[in-house]
Amino acid sequence: MEERLQSLKDYLFTEETWIQLGLTFFKVILILLLTAIAVKFGKHIIEKVFAVRQRSPLGYSERRQNTLLKLLQNVLTYVIYFSAIIAILTTFGIKVAGLLAGAGIVGLAVGFGAQSLVKDVITGFFIVFEDQFAVGDQVQIGTANGIVQEIGLRTTKVKSYTGELHIIPNGSILVVINYSIYNSLALIDISIAPENDIPSMEKNIEEFLEGLPNRYEELVKTPSYLGVQSFDASEIVVRFTAETLPTKQNSIARKIRRDLIEFFELKGIKIS
Amino acid sequence: MEERLQSLKDYLFTEETWIQLGLTFFKVILILLLTAIAVKFGKHIIEKVFAVRQRSPLGYSERRQNTLLKLLQNVLTYVIYFSAIIAILTTFGIKVAGLLAGAGIVGLAVGFGAQSLVKDVITGFFIVFEDQFAVGDQVQIGTANGIVQEIGLRTTKVKSYTGELHIIPNGSILVVINYSIYNSLALIDISIAPENDIPSMEKNIEEFLEGLPNRYEELVKTPSYLGVQSFDASEIVVRFTAETLPTKQNSIARKIRRDLIEFFELKGIKIS
Amino acid sequence: MEERLQSLKDYLFTEETWIQLGLTFFKVILILLLTAIAVKFGKHIIEKVFAVRQRSPLGYSERRQNTLLKLLQNVLTYVIYFSAIIAILTTFGIKVAGLLAGAGIVGLAVGFGAQSLVKDVITGFFIVFEDQFAVGDQVQIGTANGIVQEIGLRTTKVKSYTGELHIIPNGSILVVINYSIYNSLALIDISIAPENDIPSMEKNIEEFLEGLPNRYEELVKTPSYLGVQSFDASEIVVRFTAETLPTKQNSIARKIRRDLIEFFELKGIKIS
Amino acid sequence: MEERLQSLKDYLFTEETWIQLGLTFFKVILILLLTAIAVKFGKHIIEKVFAVRQRSPLGYSERRQNTLLKLLQNVLTYVIYFSAIIAILTTFGIKVAGLLAGAGIVGLAVGFGAQSLVKDVITGFFIVFEDQFAVGDQVQIGTANGIVQEIGLRTTKVKSYTGELHIIPNGSILVVINYSIYNSLALIDISIAPENDIPSMEKNIEEFLEGLPNRYEELVKTPSYLGVQSFDASEIVVRFTAETLPTKQNSIARKIRRDLIEFFELKGIKIS
Amino acid sequence: MEERLQSLKDYLFTEETWIQLGLTFFKVILILLLTAIAVKFGKHIIEKVFAVRQRSPLGYSERRQNTLLKLLQNVLTYVIYFSAIIAILTTFGIKVAGLLAGAGIVGLAVGFGAQSLVKDVITGFFIVFEDQFAVGDQVQIGTANGIVQEIGLRTTKVKSYTGELHIIPNGSILVVINYSIYNSLALIDISIAPENDIPSMEKNIEEFLEGLPNRYEELVKTPSYLGVQSFDASEIVVRFTAETLPTKQNSIARKIRRDLIEFFELKGIKIS
Amino acid sequence: MEERLQSLKDYLFTEETWIQLGLTFFKVILILLLTAIAVKFGKHIIEKVFAVRQRSPLGYSERRQNTLLKLLQNVLTYVIYFSAIIAILTTFGIKVAGLLAGAGIVGLAVGFGAQSLVKDVITGFFIVFEDQFAVGDQVQIGTANGIVQEIGLRTTKVKSYTGELHIIPNGSILVVINYSIYNSLALIDISIAPENDIPSMEKNIEEFLEGLPNRYEELVKTPSYLGVQSFDASEIVVRFTAETLPTKQNSIARKIRRDLIEFFELKGIKIS
Amino acid sequence: MEERLQSLKDYLFTEETWIQLGLTFFKVILILLLTAIAVKFGKHIIEKVFAVRQRSPLGYSERRQNTLLKLLQNVLTYVIYFSAIIAILTTFGIKVAGLLAGAGIVGLAVGFGAQSLVKDVITGFFIVFEDQFAVGDQVQIGTANGIVQEIGLRTTKVKSYTGELHIIPNGSILVVINYSIYNSLALIDISIAPENDIPSMEKNIEEFLEGLPNRYEELVKTPSYLGVQSFDASEIVVRFTAETLPTKQNSIARKIRRDLIEFFELKGIKIS
Repeated sequence: MEERLQSLKDYLFTEETWIQLGLTFFKVILILLLTAIAVKFGKHIIEKVFAVRQRSPLGYSERRQNTLLKLLQNVLTYVIYFSAIIAILTTFGIKVAGLLAGAGIVGLAVGFGAQSLVKDVITGFFIVFEDQFAVGDQVQIGTANGIVQEIGLRTTKVKSYTGELHIIPNGSILVVINYSIYNSLALIDISIAPENDIPSMEKNIEEFLEGLPNRYEELVKTPSYLGVQSFDASEIVVRFTAETLPTKQNSIARKIRRDLIEFFELKGIKIS
Repeated sequence: MEERLQSLKDYLFTEETWIQLGLTFFKVILILLLTAIAVKFGKHIIEKVFAVRQRSPLGYSERRQNTLLKLLQNVLTYVIYFSAIIAILTTFGIKVAGLLAGAGIVGLAVGFGAQSLVKDVITGFFIVFEDQFAVGDQVQIGTANGIVQEIGLRTTKVKSYTGELHIIPNGSILVVINYSIYNSLALIDISIAPENDIPSMEKNIEEFLEGLPNRYEELVKTPSYLGVQSFDASEIVVRFTAETLPTKQNSIARKIRRDLIEFFELKGIKIS
Repeated sequence: MEERLQSLKDYLFTEETWIQLGLTFFKVILILLLTAIAVKFGKHIIEKVFAVRQRSPLGYSERRQNTLLKLLQNVLTYVIYFSAIIAILTTFGIKVAGLLAGAGIVGLAVGFGAQSLVKDVITGFFIVFEDQFAVGDQVQIGTANGIVQEIGLRTTKVKSYTGELHIIPNGSILVVINYSIYNSLALIDISIAPENDIPSMEKNIEEFLEGLPNRYEELVKTPSYLGVQSFDASEIVVRFTAETLPTKQNSIARKIRRDLIEFFELKGIKIS
Repeated sequence: MEERLQSLKDYLFTEETWIQLGLTFFKVILILLLTAIAVKFGKHIIEKVFAVRQRSPLGYSERRQNTLLKLLQNVLTYVIYFSAIIAILTTFGIKVAGLLAGAGIVGLAVGFGAQSLVKDVITGFFIVFEDQFAVGDQVQIGTANGIVQEIGLRTTKVKSYTGELHIIPNGSILVVINYSIYNSLALIDISIAPENDIPSMEKNIEEFLEGLPNRYEELVKTPSYLGVQSFDASEIVVRFTAETLPTKQNSIARKIRRDLIEFFELKGIKIS
Repeated sequence: MEERLQSLKDYLFTEETWIQLGLTFFKVILILLLTAIAVKFGKHIIEKVFAVRQRSPLGYSERRQNTLLKLLQNVLTYVIYFSAIIAILTTFGIKVAGLLAGAGIVGLAVGFGAQSLVKDVITGFFIVFEDQFAVGDQVQIGTANGIVQEIGLRTTKVKSYTGELHIIPNGSILVVINYSIYNSLALIDISIAPENDIPSMEKNIEEFLEGLPNRYEELVKTPSYLGVQSFDASEIVVRFTAETLPTKQNSIARKIRRDLIEFFELKGIKIS
Repeated sequence: MEERLQSLKDYLFTEETWIQLGLTFFKVILILLLTAIAVKFGKHIIEKVFAVRQRSPLGYSERRQNTLLKLLQNVLTYVIYFSAIIAILTTFGIKVAGLLAGAGIVGLAVGFGAQSLVKDVITGFFIVFEDQFAVGDQVQIGTANGIVQEIGLRTTKVKSYTGELHIIPNGSILVVINYSIYNSLALIDISIAPENDIPSMEKNIEEFLEGLPNRYEELVKTPSYLGVQSFDASEIVVRFTAETLPTKQNSIARKIRRDLIEFFELKGIKIS
Repeated sequence: MEERLQSLKDYLFTEETWIQLGLTFFKVILILLLTAIAVKFGKHIIEKVFAVRQRSPLGYSERRQNTLLKLLQNVLTYVIYFSAIIAILTTFGIKVAGLLAGAGIVGLAVGFGAQSLVKDVITGFFIVFEDQFAVGDQVQIGTANGIVQEIGLRTTKVKSYTGELHIIPNGSILVVINYSIYNSLALIDISIAPENDIPSMEKNIEEFLEGLPNRYEELVKTPSYLGVQSFDASEIVVRFTAETLPTKQNSIARKIRRDLIEFFELKGIKIS
């Protein structure tokens, strides 16, 4: 016991120890500074390169470039930070490579525990590689619905209509619904009183629908009347659809409904 | 410490270093250019070959060929891009083969993390191989319902009726419901007031149904009256079915319901 | 750099290279042709063999033979196509056996990724081996309910009543409900007004039920009256059951309900 | 290329090849015949042995013997058929033992894919070994409710009341509910109008319950009145329970409810 | 071919073969007899030992001893039966130990398939060891609610109030709810008409509650009035709680509700 | 056969055998006695040590000490009992260490089967180590809500308000909700008739809320009026919140509601 | 037997044994003291360092620093405590490193059991590294919604609005919803009686909305009227949205609704 205390004492109060400590501290500070500079400088270069490419005739679509710009900055940050962490650990005398190659219980636990991290990176890579969605698209991933803000190496960020930011690990992204690729279709169901005359009501609705594209430019073509969705003694539900520019279906539907109330009042069609 | 800084300095400010950097940069640009050309050229050739086959007497159905055309282009893109990535990594001096064969913690994590990628490819291969569905079919996969746009090596794209594009990893496709193979059946339930005379009502309905196939060519045969689905003191629900061409059941049902309202009014049958 | 370009040039513009490419192309075409012929010929032979067996005194039931016919054709297609794929890969100089035996990260990923494929085949084998269901049976598997169209090595195809084709990987088949083995039982609940006299109502219903088997041959025996399922101040719910031929319960129930409305009107029993 | 075609030709058109093919074909037919005979003969012997045991004084209960009879026949079928498959594969020159011992990617995939098969057999073994349920018992397993028809090595078959046959892999059997071991208890809730006098109503109900065991022999003892389950301004819900023979609770409850309606009318108790 | 048939013939028709068969048969019978005797004898001894211990001053609670008695008999049965099975397999010349130590595909499949069996035994051991519940306790495990009948090495048996026996593999027991350890609490909500005067109503209820413990001995102490749970224009819901002996809360609540109806009528408090 | 029986006989009827049996029996009894004494003595010492520490100036909070006291007793019991089990097994000549190190099928199955046991212990350790909750806290774990009774090495015991004891394996504890750390907030929604004048109603409510903290000491500060939660033609729902001591929110909310009814009657505010 | 007891006696009653025991006890006490001091001192230093950095021009945002401060203290505590545990185990002569490297059954079980621990730490690291959320943010993780109190190495603590503390293992954090990054949007639906004149109502609402930003400074800009969400014979539902500062949407919505009631009364718009 006493010998150990003595050796501890010898270790603590030698000049050598303190010089080494100071050097290590200095090295760590240096690594941190270099890391901060490298990240800033790297991000700047990536932005410059993309600014050049945007003018090039060969380049990708603008939509794709925003995605790649953010992703490359994200990847760069990871690479630099991890290099810094390994550098610092090496400064403290810890051999990272040896740790990672070691098997046994620890290896088993780490290997299994890290599998979802690896899955995140692989899935993230394919999302960008296959251009499933890009920064600025409106998507639904699981329960998160909104505009994509960033596609990173490990997570994707989606900002919903009401302002929440959803941060989704890429590995837990299964089915992606992308609203920004094709035109959208607004489905409008109206319940009409059974005392209305059906043929004349249908003629009126057709006339109403034909007038819509002039009023709203988000309408891609004249909405089409589909028929009777259901009926009973107290109401007849009719449906029509309106093709709009991507993601505009809700705003257009609200406007059409408002116009319809006035139109029905004008024509004397009773709703139920 | 100082020696290291010195060696870093030596490394940074030699001509050799900069020449090597320039060469590497030049190689990467060359690989990227060749990749872009190869992808464009390869896709063009595949289209040509399919154009020839379409005229050949031995060939597959047109439905199948669209699927294969898109798939082969997809596979080609993967093969070329991955070759490019490996080529670039080799340029930077990273040995990919060695990495993949290495075991230890990293191998365990990557092996487990990549299993869903492998599952995607295997399942995708079987979807095409077994002709489960083709580009243009209407299918339901999980909660996604719509027209298949593309069957890729890793994902399948389905465009829903309202315009959303569903991007589904093949590995998460379990049960597939294909609507485009067989004729569809429209189920129509009508609730009738109990004061109607049942036998005469049934005769009227049968007569109505016999007149339908002349009006709608999507109807494959005369719809058939099935009987009383349920009844209580306030309503009798009767059901009939109409066999239509694939995926036309909803549009036909809407039209039949509309005709039925007029027919019931004409015959004095009361709905409830 | 230059040397590599030179060696690439040497490789591309030698006659040897082009002859080899031509030969490989010719071999691939030959393999594809032989594959197409082998599949057609093989399927034909299997059909012939089954046509012979159907007349043999020793053979399986006809229901089982349809299943086996489709399964064997399915297995044959797999075996021939996979042989063709391996042959083509060998033509390109890729050693498949070596690939499959290789361990490391790739092996781990493929082994795990392919486990659901193996599970599909094993489960498919047992479905046929244990005669769980046969082509033509009405079954429910998960949410898919319909007539079995084909039992393949990897997937089972079920066509629902409304015309959708459900393609189900065998490995995801857990509980199977088979409707075609035993007689079905129609459960009919009727809610009667409380002012009816119970004993006389019961006598009337018993009389009605005894007359049914003469009218409908799908009825296996006289339906039986069970008693009062529930009651409150506004209604008494009575239940009776009718045993029918397999899968006929819904169609018979609809007809019985229709007859019952007329019968109750005749006897003055009030429904509620 | 030509040499290969030549060697193929040599192989195809030698007498030796055809003799060997004929012999193989003959052997396969022989194995199939022997298999069919062995299965029939084996099943017969098992039935005979059980017929003897049933008379023996030492034997298991009859309920258990039915289970064992069907299980042993099932096991025998598996053993014989698998022996036949291995024999046929050996005839074609495939070494099964070597295949099963082989590791690598294929081994990993098969090992994982087959684990649910192994789990089925282990669980099936314990179901019989622990006598969890026997052929003829009414059980609920997951969503399947009905009479057990067969307990096999891999699956259990349960026939529901309405005639569907549920085929359940043993490995997916977790909690088993067995209705045939203990007496059942019918729970009957009646909602009574609040204007009834409670003490006299309770006396009447007690009197009614005492008369029941004479009428229905499935009643094990006099049903017992429990008290007020809930109440508000419009109804008082009282509950009583009736212990019946196993699985008879629903049929008895229906009969008691019917008697109760008449009894309440007689005594002037108002239901609500 | 012929040689094989010859050797088969030689093997079948030698005296040696038949003697060996007879001996094997005799051994199996002997093992089965010894097994039956050992099980009966062993169970008897365990019961005797527990009968002695029950009188000892040092022993466990009676509740615990019932559990241990049934468990030890269960364990004994397993040990003897498995010894018998291994003995019989050895008689047929199958080396079980070698089988279990064998690796390869079969080992992998069995190892994974058997893991839920091992988990059952481990969990079962801890249920008894930690005295989570004992034979006779009322528990809820998953959806099964009732009295514990037996805690075995692999399964636990719970008999529900309505008579079903739930057989639950120990490994699928996660959260256990034990009702028999602590006193239970009956929660009683009553909805009162808003025209009642609140302070006087509260005084009446307090008075009513104080009289209850004299009437029902299952009541541990005077129930306590908690206050207004919710209110709107048509009703005021008040709550009070009654602490009872374990598992008596429902039966006491029914009786208190019945008393309350009479009490409210007496005092003129209107319910709603 | 006979030789074996002979050797069995030799083994059974020697004096040596019986002496050894007696010694083994004696050792087992001794181990059991020592175990019982060690458990009692150990638990006593732990209680004494904690009694000392409670008076020490350096010690943990009392809340934490209760947890540690129960945990240490629990750990001690496990350590002593397991030592006893290994001692007994060694007495019977079974080498436990060898068993645990053995690989093969059995090792695989046990390793997988025991993983949830290991997970229980690890999670349990961190619950105590991180002071997630202590004995006496009110928590919600999954569906179990109540007061923590004991945190053991493998399970946590929570007693719900109505008296049930929930026994939860630590490994299945994911999100823990602890109610005892921070003050609670009672949310009270009241629906008011639209004919009330809003500004005067708001003034009245504010006045009412200011008077509350004097009446109830569990109220931490004056409740605050939040505004109109929703409204339509028949009611206006207003909300206010009251911060209370931990877990007192329900009891205070009941009392406030009761006061509010009287207050509204007094001020003539109509509820709806 | 006797020899063993003797050696036990020799071992227990030697002076050597007791000296060793005393030394071990002394060492454990010393380790515990040093641990307590190290934790206090370490936490203090971390706080000092952050106090310095807060004034530095280069530093992170204040929000990030709070997170890092708490995390570093958490990490420090773990490192010191685990060092202490290993030191104590070494004092008792247990070699931890050897234990962790050991394979066999125990290794398998521990490796699998510990994987969720490893996953917690990895996910926790990335939450901080990627700045997904910081201490003080309002987030939703699974069902827990509230203010982040602490992000630890293994768990994250979130305090909900009503005062519960949710303790969430980092590994079970999948999708994170962060409310504190972007402005929030209040959605307000009002149902209006159909007899109102739509254009004049719309003009009134627009006027009302324009006056709001002056009254409430949490409103970022003038709320916008969106149109008719749905309508039928009894009500027209109109919607408008109000962008507010992060997390203020509910409080603002309550105030706007209150103003609207007064405004509608003033203008004579009828709600429904």
